[in-house]
Amino acid sequence: MFKVTPWEVSGKIDYQKLIEEFGVSEITDELLQKLPDHFMLRRRIFYAHRDLDKIIDAREKFYLYTGRGPSGKIHIGHLLPWVFNLFLQKEWGTELYFQLTDDEKFLFNEDLSLEDTKRLAYDNALDIIALGFDPEKTTIFLDTDNMNVLYPIAIKVAKRVTFSTAKAVFGFDSSTNIGSIFYTSIQSAPAFLLSEIEKKSVRCLIPCAIDQDPHFRVTRDVAEPLGYPKPASIYCKLLPSLTGNEKMSSSSPESSIFTTDDEEQVRKKIMNAFTGGAATVKEQRLHGGNPEVCAVYSYYYFFFEPDDSKVRGIHDRCRSGSLLCGECKAMLAEKVNSFLTEHRKKREKARDHIDDFVKKL
Amino acid sequence: MFKVTPWEVSGKIDYQKLIEEFGVSEITDELLQKLPDHFMLRRRIFYAHRDLDKIIDAREKFYLYTGRGPSGKIHIGHLLPWVFNLFLQKEWGTELYFQLTDDEKFLFNEDLSLEDTKRLAYDNALDIIALGFDPEKTTIFLDTDNMNVLYPIAIKVAKRVTFSTAKAVFGFDSSTNIGSIFYTSIQSAPAFLLSEIEKKSVRCLIPCAIDQDPHFRVTRDVAEPLGYPKPASIYCKLLPSLTGNEKMSSSSPESSIFTTDDEEQVRKKIMNAFTGGAATVKEQRLHGGNPEVCAVYSYYYFFFEPDDSKVRGIHDRCRSGSLLCGECKAMLAEKVNSFLTEHRKKREKARDHIDDFVKKL
Repeated sequence: MFKVTPWEVSGKIDYQKLIEEFGVSEITDELLQKLPDHFMLRRRIFYAHRDLDKIIDAREKFYLYTGRGPSGKIHIGHLLPWVFNLFLQKEWGTELYFQLTDDEKFLFNEDLSLEDTKRLAYDNALDIIALGFDPEKTTIFLDTDNMNVLYPIAIKVAKRVTFSTAKAVFGFDSSTNIGSIFYTSIQSAPAFLLSEIEKKSVRCLIPCAIDQDPHFRVTRDVAEPLGYPKPASIYCKLLPSLTGNEKMSSSSPESSIFTTDDEEQVRKKIMNAFTGGAATVKEQRLHGGNPEVCAVYSYYYFFFEPDDSKVRGIHDRCRSGSLLCGECKAMLAEKVNSFLTEHRKKREKARDHIDDFVKKL
Repeated sequence: MFKVTPWEVSGKIDYQKLIEEFGVSEITDELLQKLPDHFMLRRRIFYAHRDLDKIIDAREKFYLYTGRGPSGKIHIGHLLPWVFNLFLQKEWGTELYFQLTDDEKFLFNEDLSLEDTKRLAYDNALDIIALGFDPEKTTIFLDTDNMNVLYPIAIKVAKRVTFSTAKAVFGFDSSTNIGSIFYTSIQSAPAFLLSEIEKKSVRCLIPCAIDQDPHFRVTRDVAEPLGYPKPASIYCKLLPSLTGNEKMSSSSPESSIFTTDDEEQVRKKIMNAFTGGAATVKEQRLHGGNPEVCAVYSYYYFFFEPDDSKVRGIHDRCRSGSLLCGECKAMLAEKVNSFLTEHRKKREKARDHIDDFVKKL
């Protein structure tokens, strides 16, 4: 049993099953040939899509749209799709619209005030900027600062979505608040933004985690009746939790590594991580470990070891029993800390450039 | 059987029953003593309220808030509460916030585009301005032009209103679109606007027609938990239709007199109006007419004859059989045309002053 919605991910996710459940397409080898080379594609971390083939084949201008729900600090799992957006922006020279959904996180979290989510949005923007997006081609925007632009598009969407549909897609019930019910319209709006601004059909591609697909299913259903092109999307898997098999969560800090964790915290979290190791060193030397279920290995695989031969090396040495968990964890901790030390520097520098990125629509 | 919701009024309205159904208070003689003298109050055209006594007794600063759903042209029935708002503004020197709900009318009317309702909003604003509001103290605002201000307040409301509540208050069901479900939050927002802007508790009084009370019931329920004062309200009855006993409606043009109707149209509509007259002149001379059920009399009573002794005169002469419908109608037509001729001039002049009134929040 697992559950994947934009607001709740639990259980061991069967990503193949999600493809059927959501009705998305797998990224085929043929489609891969048409895409720039990236380890997240080769490894099928980005593994599913809607109309990605069509948007590539059309050879028309399109833009990227992704987002972040500012409910807390940023962890490595959040960076994963953003790094891929950055790659596509560099590769294709595409414009990126990055939505910070301060309204969503306020509406869906009893404990967060709008002041909280707005503050978090600006804080999270530092992590986005730190990754190295092109300020000329990147617009980070807060929902509540841009409602004059977003709301008129959103209500066009909302007029075509009944409560029945929202209930079926998102699992709402009578006790759901009316802001949460409406919210999906706000997440649809940026998919039509350039069409609206340029008064002509401009396509968009949404690279994000698979849990956001329900929103874009709604978006796609209303697009053509509204005279907009259907957005294409490309979806990644979720970085597993350090403590087991579930999505990393800001509410259990030991399950994930935040960009603001210091070296000692990082080391401790990794040393305590769930692995595929055997019960004893002796046993592991004899039978090897199991990287497929190992949180530490998944960190290499999803993010920290883009080199396929090196990640294969780690995999094989684990399997053969020659690489023990202690060594493997120490190696990862070093990689993570080296990445985060740099990231935190860039994150601090980003404070001086926030106005180059966080713009009014 | 009658029905009164913000979007549907049908049947012969029992206004006393509405007081119980909605849970509002009657305007008592005692309360009347505390209010400036106006025929709409004396005649209990404005007849019900919520916390009007409290806002008067508090002797603190408050502002007026009213609105218009721009779904078509303006008729006399619309002007009725606006004229009363104007009176209060003059009498008390209060600021007025006038909401034009272009989003609402788009969301609730299959046939209207957002471009339609926005255009109608600007057109309707001319009728508002023509009445003579003080530009220094009046802010007319379109919803979709002011979402940066309204939406952050609206989602605070929305977070505290479940679908259950919206369903119970407005009669929504699963086929209602998610924009309509959310909309009441947008109509709540202006009630908290000055509290939000001035960062302290500022009360507001909402003079409007009784059919809008369901929205403000919701507004009042969420106010205190959000740290805002509950809005007070004062409600008027609806001007009866010229053709019978229902609310005037833009969809049946003969039922109402629009401000843009020419003299001939006005005369024709009044001549064809439903009256309390007898079947024959002879019979009416003998037994008199019945002003209580007469649409023509209601036009005098609600709007065109503020002088109590004169309206009493019309009433008594009708009752006694000395005033026949033809004469009475001709007299009304003249009054209406004389009012509308002036109104249309001011309406045209208003085009030059629209920016003094239609402002960004």
